[in-house]
Amino acid sequence: MKTLKIIKIGGNIIDDADELNYFLKGFSKLKGLKILVHGGGKSATALANKLGVDAKMIDGRRITDTETLDIVTMTYAGKINKTIVAQLQANDCNALGLSGADGNTILAEKRPVKNIDYGFAGDVVKVNTGVLKLLITNNIILVFCALTHNGNGQLLNTNADTIAAELAIAFAKDYYVELYYCFEKNGLLKDVTDNDSVIPFIDTKTYNSLIADGVITDGMLPKLNNCFYALKHQVSKVCIGKAEMLFNSNSKFTTIQE
Amino acid sequence: MKTLKIIKIGGNIIDDADELNYFLKGFSKLKGLKILVHGGGKSATALANKLGVDAKMIDGRRITDTETLDIVTMTYAGKINKTIVAQLQANDCNALGLSGADGNTILAEKRPVKNIDYGFAGDVVKVNTGVLKLLITNNIILVFCALTHNGNGQLLNTNADTIAAELAIAFAKDYYVELYYCFEKNGLLKDVTDNDSVIPFIDTKTYNSLIADGVITDGMLPKLNNCFYALKHQVSKVCIGKAEMLFNSNSKFTTIQE
Repeated sequence: MKTLKIIKIGGNIIDDADELNYFLKGFSKLKGLKILVHGGGKSATALANKLGVDAKMIDGRRITDTETLDIVTMTYAGKINKTIVAQLQANDCNALGLSGADGNTILAEKRPVKNIDYGFAGDVVKVNTGVLKLLITNNIILVFCALTHNGNGQLLNTNADTIAAELAIAFAKDYYVELYYCFEKNGLLKDVTDNDSVIPFIDTKTYNSLIADGVITDGMLPKLNNCFYALKHQVSKVCIGKAEMLFNSNSKFTTIQE
Repeated sequence: MKTLKIIKIGGNIIDDADELNYFLKGFSKLKGLKILVHGGGKSATALANKLGVDAKMIDGRRITDTETLDIVTMTYAGKINKTIVAQLQANDCNALGLSGADGNTILAEKRPVKNIDYGFAGDVVKVNTGVLKLLITNNIILVFCALTHNGNGQLLNTNADTIAAELAIAFAKDYYVELYYCFEKNGLLKDVTDNDSVIPFIDTKTYNSLIADGVITDGMLPKLNNCFYALKHQVSKVCIGKAEMLFNSNSKFTTIQE
């Protein structure tokens, strides 16, 4: 089976023109099949502020009312996605940007209202890989933004980490999938104040003990849950760390194993 | 050769939720191969107003400074394109939205500065149909927004009528291309105050005499120039009128012939 790298980038790269430029140059040169997934929450919040719309967050999750859905759609699928695609094209990387509505690639359902009404937030139901494989096998590099749809005309705001995990799982039947979560730290840190205290490998057992010891706290929990979720569904390899882990064999990062 | 319909819609449909819904239902049911191209100028101006950015227009053309490019990118490629794609999906039409940067499909160059500096406005240089044909032949319905790129990382704001004409011309080698410009009037009107005074056919000769008689004025000139430009480059058929011309054989519209 061929290897397919699925790489998720977040605000630390997207919101800094130099960082983004550096990352996209490196990404373009990466050998083999690859898909890029991007968030853009900080840019969406900045636009909301300019428009006088309150960005409502609960536990780090955005409450997506109608106005906020417009804002994230404009930011993620418009500004960020097309900026990335155009810059990849400049690096001879034939990129094509997608939301989950495009080609019906990612179907989701509106998150059920329990204690919190997240509004137009989507939980992924199904990834349709047909069109995606057609494009991948024709040397197109897919760039996914963090939007899905429900099949009934409703766009849904969907966590980019989750989209990356769900894409990785959907492709695991056909490819040896490596999932890379790029963020601002060198990896999972034993001491959150020491960026050199990277834990090189964790498995389910060490994961549970790290939670018990308070090393893994709120911010990292959903990210690591996505990692283990992917591994449980036949994704071959999951790594978290700085984007450099993709380009520089000497860099530190954390590999997550089952 | 198979027939490919290229259909351009503008503000009168895009800016009215009911009109858009009605149009997209009809578009979904249209038999045969089809591509949708949309503008969105009024929505972009509305967002510019909300953000306190002056929408600068000269002779109906937008002056695209950096802030305005962000606004049109968010509006065209984000909000409008993804809303249309999601609604088409709800009508069992497997739509996929694109800018000209996606898949390097429409290359343009920044319009040279002569008397007026249009800013980041693009004049189309080349349409690459390879990826588009791959998608079309796999039953994907393409939805183009009015953005292109220059291949060096710069997105460019490009007139949607022009994009429709350039796509039509690029596909004319492989398909019998019909180009439909949908706008708020029933067609080219002999008397601009009488929506029933549709001129059913015009050719180059009648076109020139209509200009001389003052029937074709500023607003219609660029649209009709696009029509004749397309016909001169092997596009088989060009029609202008209300979107109903696509769905209702009794409706009036103007067919342009060479």
